[in-house]
Amino acid sequence: MAFETANTAVARAPGSVERLVLLAEPDMAGVNAFIAERMQSPVAIIPALADHLVGAGGKRLRPLVTIAGARLAGATDDACQKLAAAVEFIHTATLLHDDVVDASELRRGKVAAHLIWGGTQSVLVGDYLFARAFELIVEASSMKALEILARASRVIAEGEVLQLTRSHDLALSQEVYLEIISAKTAELFAAAAEAGAVSAGVADDKCAALRAFGLNLGIAFQLADDALDYGGSTGALGKNAGDDFREGKVTLPLLLAIARTGEREAAFWERTVARREQVEDDFRRARDLIAAAGAVEATLDLAADYALRAKAALTAFPRNDWREALEALADFAVSRRA
Amino acid sequence: MAFETANTAVARAPGSVERLVLLAEPDMAGVNAFIAERMQSPVAIIPALADHLVGAGGKRLRPLVTIAGARLAGATDDACQKLAAAVEFIHTATLLHDDVVDASELRRGKVAAHLIWGGTQSVLVGDYLFARAFELIVEASSMKALEILARASRVIAEGEVLQLTRSHDLALSQEVYLEIISAKTAELFAAAAEAGAVSAGVADDKCAALRAFGLNLGIAFQLADDALDYGGSTGALGKNAGDDFREGKVTLPLLLAIARTGEREAAFWERTVARREQVEDDFRRARDLIAAAGAVEATLDLAADYALRAKAALTAFPRNDWREALEALADFAVSRRA
Repeated sequence: MAFETANTAVARAPGSVERLVLLAEPDMAGVNAFIAERMQSPVAIIPALADHLVGAGGKRLRPLVTIAGARLAGATDDACQKLAAAVEFIHTATLLHDDVVDASELRRGKVAAHLIWGGTQSVLVGDYLFARAFELIVEASSMKALEILARASRVIAEGEVLQLTRSHDLALSQEVYLEIISAKTAELFAAAAEAGAVSAGVADDKCAALRAFGLNLGIAFQLADDALDYGGSTGALGKNAGDDFREGKVTLPLLLAIARTGEREAAFWERTVARREQVEDDFRRARDLIAAAGAVEATLDLAADYALRAKAALTAFPRNDWREALEALADFAVSRRA
Repeated sequence: MAFETANTAVARAPGSVERLVLLAEPDMAGVNAFIAERMQSPVAIIPALADHLVGAGGKRLRPLVTIAGARLAGATDDACQKLAAAVEFIHTATLLHDDVVDASELRRGKVAAHLIWGGTQSVLVGDYLFARAFELIVEASSMKALEILARASRVIAEGEVLQLTRSHDLALSQEVYLEIISAKTAELFAAAAEAGAVSAGVADDKCAALRAFGLNLGIAFQLADDALDYGGSTGALGKNAGDDFREGKVTLPLLLAIARTGEREAAFWERTVARREQVEDDFRRARDLIAAAGAVEATLDLAADYALRAKAALTAFPRNDWREALEALADFAVSRRA
């Protein structure tokens, strides 16, 4: 197992989000201006709460994907900037609602908004940003982008509900797990890339290629995230490592470890995850069991497969700076380490 | 005061929602089919939760207003049916989020959804319905309707936040109170009517007239609702009478009573509303004080003024069945009694 792990790690390109950030810098200046402008409201608590989360930054990966999708597809106008800002608002709205749902304590390395302003304000400001997103898409004048992003918003909510109803289910299949992360995480990456392509007015097959890129990239990101929750540090994650475990959220590393440890640890998983009766040392023990089962590496290997599919989808486009920057992003998704 | 009250009651036409219901019956069959179809999802809890609220019916006033707006403006196609279904979904989404925010116990005469499925599911199903609404508007192919309903969604969220931040403020001015109810309630009626007009392709002044009708109608409805919370019965309201008081929510009847009872009752209002330290008999006492101050009647009188403005806005259109049905609806808004 140690040999296999070492091999896998070597095979992975380090990747980078920096190339994309540099290339998209002029566009992102426009995107950031829209974000700053449209989170304003005469009701003071709205910009205060929104800025707590939006201003904390994060990498703005989704708007970057929209911009790159548009430019790779040959967009010559700036409609993609409004779409990219809308994508970030939809993402922020789902984060606000998620944190209320999950009762998370940390988000982007800061205290979660609902702990400062209350869950009710987080719900309403999420609604506000969601509506603002659709106003921006209307301004970008693309009915097709509206369709894509409205559909994505619906699929995300569907995925969240599915996750909530199945979250403590130790018998969750890998198939349903992938369905959940496709909906709750990857769909917005898919829609972000596709909306960019659509704004460039390219043919349907090119739009589908960028959608496929985004979908596979999103799955890769979420798999890596779920792996890091058992193999990373709180600092690298911008949230508390072990949050998934403490919430009893069933993710792939856990599912694999449950399968691989079998009868021997069944009572431990049943108590800590299904019934969520946890004591001080349980997370450390879960982490050790998961590591010993090779479940973190197996999850990262699967993530690497999805990153590969994401890069393959880009072959619909000629090799250029934008394509290479997106390839580097796909590598980055699975090369993050604690 | 007794004489004035009697006079006012006589002056108000009884009004009716029945005329509109009958006239819009063929259109509403289409609207209801869209509603039933689009609340479906392979994730079973979504239709279950949505149906609990949507299936409970309510009067579907907002979609009726969209249909009437479209037909009064001369719409000959059925795009208004999808817009009307979208309006009902936006309304339902805000109700789901509101009930979580308010921790209400009853909605449309049934136990509030969040008490059965939990607040988290209510938030997510609200998001789902909101996204579904935008998918329907995209299908109706009206960029202008999208703009109107996205804006309305933003204004509603803004109004909710404003209400939340000012809700226990005994010094709330009537002006800010009207601003709050305009945003959180009347804006969707305004957008519902305007979107209908827009789908008919009429000139801007006609769209503006229908918007003005909806806005004034919505204010009239909310004022009457706020009055009935102190003057109605639980059965007539479909929610618990006294909910506003128990939540310490400052509405016009309360503001008027606070002003009119002055120093004499200042300590009572301070304790029960500002600090929300209530005992068994407080609601009955508040109700008596509000009735004695004539605050329920004064609120209903103001509602009647808004209903009158709503009807005046309709004079932009020739008198016909649709216009008369909308006039009857405006009268109905302020003639409801416990």
